[in-house]
Amino acid sequence: MPATMKALRKTNRGKGLQLENLSVPAIGPTDVLVRVKASSICGTDLHIYGWDRWSQGRIKPPVTLGHEFCGYVEKAGQEVTAVKSGDFVSAEMHVNCGHCQQCRLGQAHICQNLRIIGIDIDGAFAEFVKIPATNIWKLDPAIPEHYGAILDPLGNAVHTVLAGRIAGQTVLVTGCGPIGLMSIAVAKACGSSTVFATETNDHRREMAKPMGADYALNPAAEDPVKRIREATGGTGVDVLLEMSGNPKAIQQGFKALRAGGRASLLGIPTENVPLDLVEDVIFKGATVQGIYGRRMYETWVQMTALLKAGRLNFEPLFGERLELENFETAFGKLQNGLAGKILMYPNGIHK
Amino acid sequence: MPATMKALRKTNRGKGLQLENLSVPAIGPTDVLVRVKASSICGTDLHIYGWDRWSQGRIKPPVTLGHEFCGYVEKAGQEVTAVKSGDFVSAEMHVNCGHCQQCRLGQAHICQNLRIIGIDIDGAFAEFVKIPATNIWKLDPAIPEHYGAILDPLGNAVHTVLAGRIAGQTVLVTGCGPIGLMSIAVAKACGSSTVFATETNDHRREMAKPMGADYALNPAAEDPVKRIREATGGTGVDVLLEMSGNPKAIQQGFKALRAGGRASLLGIPTENVPLDLVEDVIFKGATVQGIYGRRMYETWVQMTALLKAGRLNFEPLFGERLELENFETAFGKLQNGLAGKILMYPNGIHK
Amino acid sequence: MPATMKALRKTNRGKGLQLENLSVPAIGPTDVLVRVKASSICGTDLHIYGWDRWSQGRIKPPVTLGHEFCGYVEKAGQEVTAVKSGDFVSAEMHVNCGHCQQCRLGQAHICQNLRIIGIDIDGAFAEFVKIPATNIWKLDPAIPEHYGAILDPLGNAVHTVLAGRIAGQTVLVTGCGPIGLMSIAVAKACGSSTVFATETNDHRREMAKPMGADYALNPAAEDPVKRIREATGGTGVDVLLEMSGNPKAIQQGFKALRAGGRASLLGIPTENVPLDLVEDVIFKGATVQGIYGRRMYETWVQMTALLKAGRLNFEPLFGERLELENFETAFGKLQNGLAGKILMYPNGIHK
Amino acid sequence: MPATMKALRKTNRGKGLQLENLSVPAIGPTDVLVRVKASSICGTDLHIYGWDRWSQGRIKPPVTLGHEFCGYVEKAGQEVTAVKSGDFVSAEMHVNCGHCQQCRLGQAHICQNLRIIGIDIDGAFAEFVKIPATNIWKLDPAIPEHYGAILDPLGNAVHTVLAGRIAGQTVLVTGCGPIGLMSIAVAKACGSSTVFATETNDHRREMAKPMGADYALNPAAEDPVKRIREATGGTGVDVLLEMSGNPKAIQQGFKALRAGGRASLLGIPTENVPLDLVEDVIFKGATVQGIYGRRMYETWVQMTALLKAGRLNFEPLFGERLELENFETAFGKLQNGLAGKILMYPNGIHK
Repeated sequence: MPATMKALRKTNRGKGLQLENLSVPAIGPTDVLVRVKASSICGTDLHIYGWDRWSQGRIKPPVTLGHEFCGYVEKAGQEVTAVKSGDFVSAEMHVNCGHCQQCRLGQAHICQNLRIIGIDIDGAFAEFVKIPATNIWKLDPAIPEHYGAILDPLGNAVHTVLAGRIAGQTVLVTGCGPIGLMSIAVAKACGSSTVFATETNDHRREMAKPMGADYALNPAAEDPVKRIREATGGTGVDVLLEMSGNPKAIQQGFKALRAGGRASLLGIPTENVPLDLVEDVIFKGATVQGIYGRRMYETWVQMTALLKAGRLNFEPLFGERLELENFETAFGKLQNGLAGKILMYPNGIHK
Repeated sequence: MPATMKALRKTNRGKGLQLENLSVPAIGPTDVLVRVKASSICGTDLHIYGWDRWSQGRIKPPVTLGHEFCGYVEKAGQEVTAVKSGDFVSAEMHVNCGHCQQCRLGQAHICQNLRIIGIDIDGAFAEFVKIPATNIWKLDPAIPEHYGAILDPLGNAVHTVLAGRIAGQTVLVTGCGPIGLMSIAVAKACGSSTVFATETNDHRREMAKPMGADYALNPAAEDPVKRIREATGGTGVDVLLEMSGNPKAIQQGFKALRAGGRASLLGIPTENVPLDLVEDVIFKGATVQGIYGRRMYETWVQMTALLKAGRLNFEPLFGERLELENFETAFGKLQNGLAGKILMYPNGIHK
Repeated sequence: MPATMKALRKTNRGKGLQLENLSVPAIGPTDVLVRVKASSICGTDLHIYGWDRWSQGRIKPPVTLGHEFCGYVEKAGQEVTAVKSGDFVSAEMHVNCGHCQQCRLGQAHICQNLRIIGIDIDGAFAEFVKIPATNIWKLDPAIPEHYGAILDPLGNAVHTVLAGRIAGQTVLVTGCGPIGLMSIAVAKACGSSTVFATETNDHRREMAKPMGADYALNPAAEDPVKRIREATGGTGVDVLLEMSGNPKAIQQGFKALRAGGRASLLGIPTENVPLDLVEDVIFKGATVQGIYGRRMYETWVQMTALLKAGRLNFEPLFGERLELENFETAFGKLQNGLAGKILMYPNGIHK
Repeated sequence: MPATMKALRKTNRGKGLQLENLSVPAIGPTDVLVRVKASSICGTDLHIYGWDRWSQGRIKPPVTLGHEFCGYVEKAGQEVTAVKSGDFVSAEMHVNCGHCQQCRLGQAHICQNLRIIGIDIDGAFAEFVKIPATNIWKLDPAIPEHYGAILDPLGNAVHTVLAGRIAGQTVLVTGCGPIGLMSIAVAKACGSSTVFATETNDHRREMAKPMGADYALNPAAEDPVKRIREATGGTGVDVLLEMSGNPKAIQQGFKALRAGGRASLLGIPTENVPLDLVEDVIFKGATVQGIYGRRMYETWVQMTALLKAGRLNFEPLFGERLELENFETAFGKLQNGLAGKILMYPNGIHK
C-alpha cells in the first residue's frame, strides 16, 4: 500500500478544484479503508466546484470531495467484523451520531448531528477513502462495478419511490435529472401503472420514455396538469415524485395530484414556495413527505435487492468514464447540462 | 308528525339568516328522517351568515343551514335496516357518491362529488332533517345529548390527532378554537406526553390548560418556537396539529417540528402560504398531512369509543343553550369571539 | 329481453348440479341486471358439486352457483348512477351489511353479516345475474373479456401479495393452484426479487416458472426450507404467501420465513394446524395476516390498474372455454387436478 | 473504584445461584461501566435458578445474571460521547451484531446474532456491569430510580401495546403477570376504551382493576369469551395482548378477537399450540404479531416519554427491596407466585 495518493480537493474558498497528493488516511479500530474503484459526480459537487452561496456557507476547505463511489476494502480496523480485505463495497456517506432522538427512532438519515463524507470530511474523489465500518455496504459481486458507483443517487430514487405505495399507482415524476430518471425505472419495476414525466430540457426529457415513462411532457410547450387530468379520467395521479426543486413544477405537481394522493419531495427549491395549502393539501387530504438521503439502511437493502434481481437497467444513464486527472472535462460536460452520470476512476479505468 | 316545521335558512344572497316555516322533508326508501334534538353552530355557519366571498361562491339559496346535530329517528325508509324509530342518532353530513376513485379506495371523506347537508342540501337548523341511511350514526345512550351535537367538530379533532402516532409523542396545537381545544384533550387521552398550545386570543388560550395542555403560549408575547425548542432539549415536537389556518402559526408550527415529525393541517388559510419547503419539510424528512372532515366511518368509531369510555370531558367548551328562535343572540355571541359551542334546540330545550 | 333463462343450480342436497330454466331475476331500484358473458369455475364450486361436509353445512338448495364472472349491464335500477346499459362489468360477490363494526371501519370484506352471490344467493352460472349496484365493478374496455371472468381469484392473489411490502422482497409461495400461480406473477410485477414456489403436483409446479418464479420446488423430493435458507444466505424469505391450506406446507412456510418477515395466509386448512408459535412467530417477531376475499374496493382498484397497464399475463392459466350446457365436462376436468381456469359462456361463446 | 465486586452468578450446571467476589470488568474504548443501583428479577432468572430444560440448553456457566437494572455511569470508554460519569442510566441488554439483514432493516431486536447481557454475558446482579455504549439508555432524572430498574419488562409491555393502534380500541390482556399488568396500564394511558383481563391466579387477577382493567375475568370460573362477546355487542375485542403463554388462554384470546383485529403475542408457550387458523385468523382477516424484546430504540423513547410525562403508575407492582446478599429470600418469594417486582440493591439500598 502506498503512503500517498491523488485526491481531488477544494483547497481554497473560490471556484474550481485542485488535484493534490496527500497521505493515505490512517484508520482507527472501527474504520475501513477502501481503494476507490469508481466515483460518480453529483450535482452537489458541481455547486461546490462553482462555489455558490450554499457552498460558501457549508464547505470548509481543504476537503476532498466525492460521495458516490464503490471500491474494494484495502484494510479494516481491528474491531471490524462485517467486511474484510478484498470485499467489494460502497458506503452510506452520511455519518450519524447514534444518540439523538432521530437516531434512537431509526431515522438516522435525518440525525441532528449528521456529517457527510465528501462534504464535511474527506471523500472518495481519491485513491483511498476512510469510512466508519457502520457505514460500509458490502455489495453482491453480481452487481456491476459501475452500478456500485451510483448507489447514492439510486438510493435517493428508491427512498422516494418506496416511501409509500407504488404498485398499481399512477405516478408523476417532475424533473428528469439522473434521480428523476432512475425514479421512473424504479417505479415501473415496482408495479406502478401509468408514469408521467415532466421536463423542459429536451435532452433529459427524451430519456424519460426509454427509462419507462408512458408520457414525457414538456411543461414549456403544453399544460401538463391538463394532460394528466385527461389521461386519468379527471382524477389525477396517485403519487407525485418531485425531483426538480422548481417551484412551478412543484405547484403543477400538486395540482396534478389526486385527492388522497402522496407527494414525495426530494428536489431542493432555492427559495420559499407559495403553496395553495387549502386546495392542494388540506381539502385533498394529501400526504406530503419530505425525502432526504436514504434510509439507513433499509433503502440500501431494497436497492441492492432490486439490482441483484436484475429489475433495473440504467445503462442509458451512464456517460463518459475518465481518469481522475481529467476531472475538468467531466465537470465541464456536466455544467453544460448533460443528464447522465460521469464516472471517474482514481486508480485507473483499466485496473 | 306535523306537516310543517321551523327552519333557519339562507333565503337570499346577502347577510343574515331567516327563520321560515316549510314542509317537513319527504323521505325516500333509503333515507331517514330525524327529529332534531340539538344543533351546534360551526364557524362555517358564521361565514355563511356574514355572506363572505367563500359563501357567495358556494351557497345557493334557499337552503337550511346546520351540519352539527343529534336527534331521534322519526321515520326510516322501507329499505333501511340499520336504525329504527326512536333511535338516538347523529350523522356524517358529507354525502359521497360511492363510485369515484376515492370512494372505491375507502377515502369517501374526500369523494370527488361530495355534497354537504347544511351547505348544499337542507340541514339541521330545523325541527326535522332528512339523512341518507348510510350517513346515519347510531349513538350509544351512554353518550350525553349535548355531546351528540358536537360530533362533527370532535370528529375533525379525532381525525387529526389519530392520523398518526400520538402515544408518548410531544405535540403542538396551533390555534385554540373549539377544534383545537378538543384536540388537546384527545391527544392527552391517547397518551401524548407534553402538549404545547399557541393562541393569541386570551380567552381561548386560557382554556388550553384546563383541556390538558402543559404549555399555553401566546405568540404575540413570546417566541413559541424558542420555548418549544428549549422544552424539548432542542429537538422540537413530534407532532404538529395545525388548527388555526393562520399563515404565521403554520410557519411557526413547522419551525417547531422535529426532523421526522408529523404535521397534520386542518385549519384553513385564506391565502397561499409561503413555506420553507427545504428546511421545514425536505431536510427534515417531515410528513405533512392534509386533514379534511372525518374518515367515514373510522373516525366515528374512534370518537364514540373514546366518549363511551369516558375518556373525554368537554364540559368547559359548552356555552349557551337556546331555542332556534334566538339564533341572532347565538350568532352575535360567536361573532364576538366566544370560544365555546352554542347549542340550539329546534324542538325546544326542555322536551 | 327474454322472460326465462338457463341456470346451473344445486337443486337438492346431494352430488351434482342441474341445468334449469327459470325466470330472469327481477331487480329493485338499487340493483343491476347483468347479461353474463363468461363465468369461471372456482374450487369452491367443485366442493359444492361434490357436496362435501362444508357444502352440506352452508348451501341451502335451490341456488344458482357462480361467483367469478363478467358481462354487460342489461338493465339498471332507477336509483343506480354508476353504470348504464351496455357497460362491461364484473362484480364483488360478497354483499356486506354496511352497518356492523367491520363495515364501519372499512373492512367490509370481513363484514359480520356477509352473504355471497353464487353461494347464498343466486349467482352467475346463468344467462343473467342480479347484483346490488354497490357491488358492480365497471371494467375498462382495455381489459380482455376472459380476464374479466377471473377477477375474483385474481383479487385474492392481489389482496394477499399487496397486504404488505413486496418491492425488493424475497417471496415464498406455497401452493401452485390458480391463485398461487397468479400471486407469483403479481409479486414479480410489483418488484419482488427472488420468488420461490413449492408444489407437489408436477403439472402445477411446472407452471410456476412460466409465471415468474425463480425456484419451483417439490417438497416431496427435497427439503424446501433448506434450499430457501441456502439461497437467501441463511436469512429466509421476507414474505410467505400461503396458498395451499396444507398443514405441512404452512409449517414449512413458517420455517422458511426470516425473522421480522410477513406470512400472509389465504389457503384454507381443513383441520387445526399445530404451530411452533415460539420459534416461528414470537421469537421471530413475525407478522401473520389472515387474508379473506378482496378488500372492498381497494383490491379491485389495484388489480384493474395492473391489468390495464399490461403488467400481468395469465394466458397460460386459461384452460378450455365451454358452453354452460357442457358443465359436466368442465367439472370433470377440474376434478382430475387441472390447474387452469375453465370458462363457461352461458349466452354462447361466439356472441 | 474498587478492584473487586460482589456478583450473583450461576457457576455450575445445576440448581441455585452463587454469590461470588470477582474483578470489576475492564472496559474497552466503546464500553461503559455502570455502578448498579437496583436490579429487578425476571421470570427468566427464576428459570435459570431452577435450571430447567431451556436453561440447560442456553446457559454456559459461569455467568453473572441480571438484565433489568439501572445505575450510574462509573466510567466511559474514550470513544464514548453519549454519556459521562455520573449519568443515571439503564440499558438494552440485547446486543445486536449490526450487520445482519434484520439489523440493516431497523429490526435489531431480532438480530440473527443476538447476545444477551445477564444470559450470555455477565449481567447486572453485581456491583458493576459493563455495557456497550450503543446499548446505554440515559434516563431523565425525573424518572424515579425504582422505575429505572424495570424498564426491560415495561419495554416488553410498551412494545406489545404500541405494536398497532390502541386509542379507542377494546383490549383483552390474557395473563396478569407483571408485564400483563403493566400492559393494562399502558393501554389505558394510550387511550384504549374497555380493557378486559383474564388470569386464574387470584392474587394477580386482583391487581388487574387497580392497574386500569374494566373487567378482571377468571377463566377457571366463567367463560371469558362469552363475557367479552356480550360486553362488545357480539363483535369481540379489537386487540388481544397475549401475556400468558398458556395454550388455552391463547385459544380463548383468538376466539374473543373481532374480525379484522390484532393479536400481539408476547407470552412464551412451552409446546406447540394447535390454532384454528381458518376461523380465528384467515376468515377473520386477523393480524397476528410475534413480539420479542423491545424495539431498539423506539420502544425506549416511547416508554421514557410516558414515564416522564407521569402517565404511568406502577407503585402497586413493586414488592420488596433487598440487598443482593438476600437473594434467596427474593427468589423464594417469586417461586411462590408473587406477582410484583422484587428489587435487589448490589451496592446497598440506602446509598
